[in-house]
Amino acid sequence: MNNTNIVWHQASVVRSRRSEQLGHRSAVVWFTGLPSSGKSTIAHALEEWLYQMGCRTFVLDGDNVRHGLCSDLGFSAEDRAENIRRIGEVAKLFVEAGVIVLTAFISPFRADRERVRALVGEADFMEIYCDCPLAVCEERDPKGHYQKARDGVLQHFTGISAPYEPPDTCSLALKTGLYSPVECAEQVAALLMKRGIVNPESLRIF
Amino acid sequence: MNNTNIVWHQASVVRSRRSEQLGHRSAVVWFTGLPSSGKSTIAHALEEWLYQMGCRTFVLDGDNVRHGLCSDLGFSAEDRAENIRRIGEVAKLFVEAGVIVLTAFISPFRADRERVRALVGEADFMEIYCDCPLAVCEERDPKGHYQKARDGVLQHFTGISAPYEPPDTCSLALKTGLYSPVECAEQVAALLMKRGIVNPESLRIF
Repeated sequence: MNNTNIVWHQASVVRSRRSEQLGHRSAVVWFTGLPSSGKSTIAHALEEWLYQMGCRTFVLDGDNVRHGLCSDLGFSAEDRAENIRRIGEVAKLFVEAGVIVLTAFISPFRADRERVRALVGEADFMEIYCDCPLAVCEERDPKGHYQKARDGVLQHFTGISAPYEPPDTCSLALKTGLYSPVECAEQVAALLMKRGIVNPESLRIF
Repeated sequence: MNNTNIVWHQASVVRSRRSEQLGHRSAVVWFTGLPSSGKSTIAHALEEWLYQMGCRTFVLDGDNVRHGLCSDLGFSAEDRAENIRRIGEVAKLFVEAGVIVLTAFISPFRADRERVRALVGEADFMEIYCDCPLAVCEERDPKGHYQKARDGVLQHFTGISAPYEPPDTCSLALKTGLYSPVECAEQVAALLMKRGIVNPESLRIF
């Protein structure tokens, strides 16, 4: 057959068809906060809940991004900005793929987070602030990073030797020093239902 | 409640649980070939088939990557390598998320493709060569890029002023100058079934 006149095909499997098939919308749930403020833990607790509901989800965090996609970047303000830019772009691809993507990065600078919000679009972006006193984060310190930062072994460490800018406005502020990760995840789940991202009655799996 | 002793939680929603829920495995289907050899068109035709089967899929191609994640990169050999490296890392994240990811990039250098294969892992990586004579690709030229390359307006253009290294070995070579995109997509679909990525009897949606 003669197919020399092929032109580029628009993608036929667009986001709306994916949502229709899955019975839920996609979105970015962007956790921000100091090191050890609970971002990853809460994101994974939320993901477990979403999985059990039959939703498509994925967690982007330091463990799967800093060693891979962003392994060429350090912790200067410039590299942090590029790190967040790439994560924002990847999050946008996941949203297009129909996935509720949960990101767990310190993302200390307001301007970087605002750029992601603008990229993804307000309707699909929820900023969740893990609001926890520095003293509590430092007491937790599961990886001993705060101690190393205090000792000057780790440089540019957010909260100690690098700034953290809390959100001016956010979709939700979680008091992660007062409530358990599961309790915090439940608050985010309630927000996802309120915003119409997830509606338990329309889910298609199970 | 006291939760100051939180430590990092391993992700509980791992790849195997996602596969179990969806009824199919995830993988990277990596299309490579000259400009206008049919990569994107075939990827989108395959995605439509996978969607109708109830599989989770996503196409990464120039349209959603070159203007976003890799908008800072040009077309030098070095930038092409970094482009493919990032796409490989993103493809790996999608595989972890349970998605059959179809990538449609010229990816002209064997070494770059081999790096992605090593990163993703042999078991999850299929290299599909869109094998089409340069003359046919150039005759198609839907965007007029070959003409611009011949005129010297576009530099470093694969096939004209930059090299293309065909695979030594690949999972499948498609004669995209002889068969239609749908026929080619069917050949890839058959491979996905043969490799046990997709088994029509085990799919959970519908």
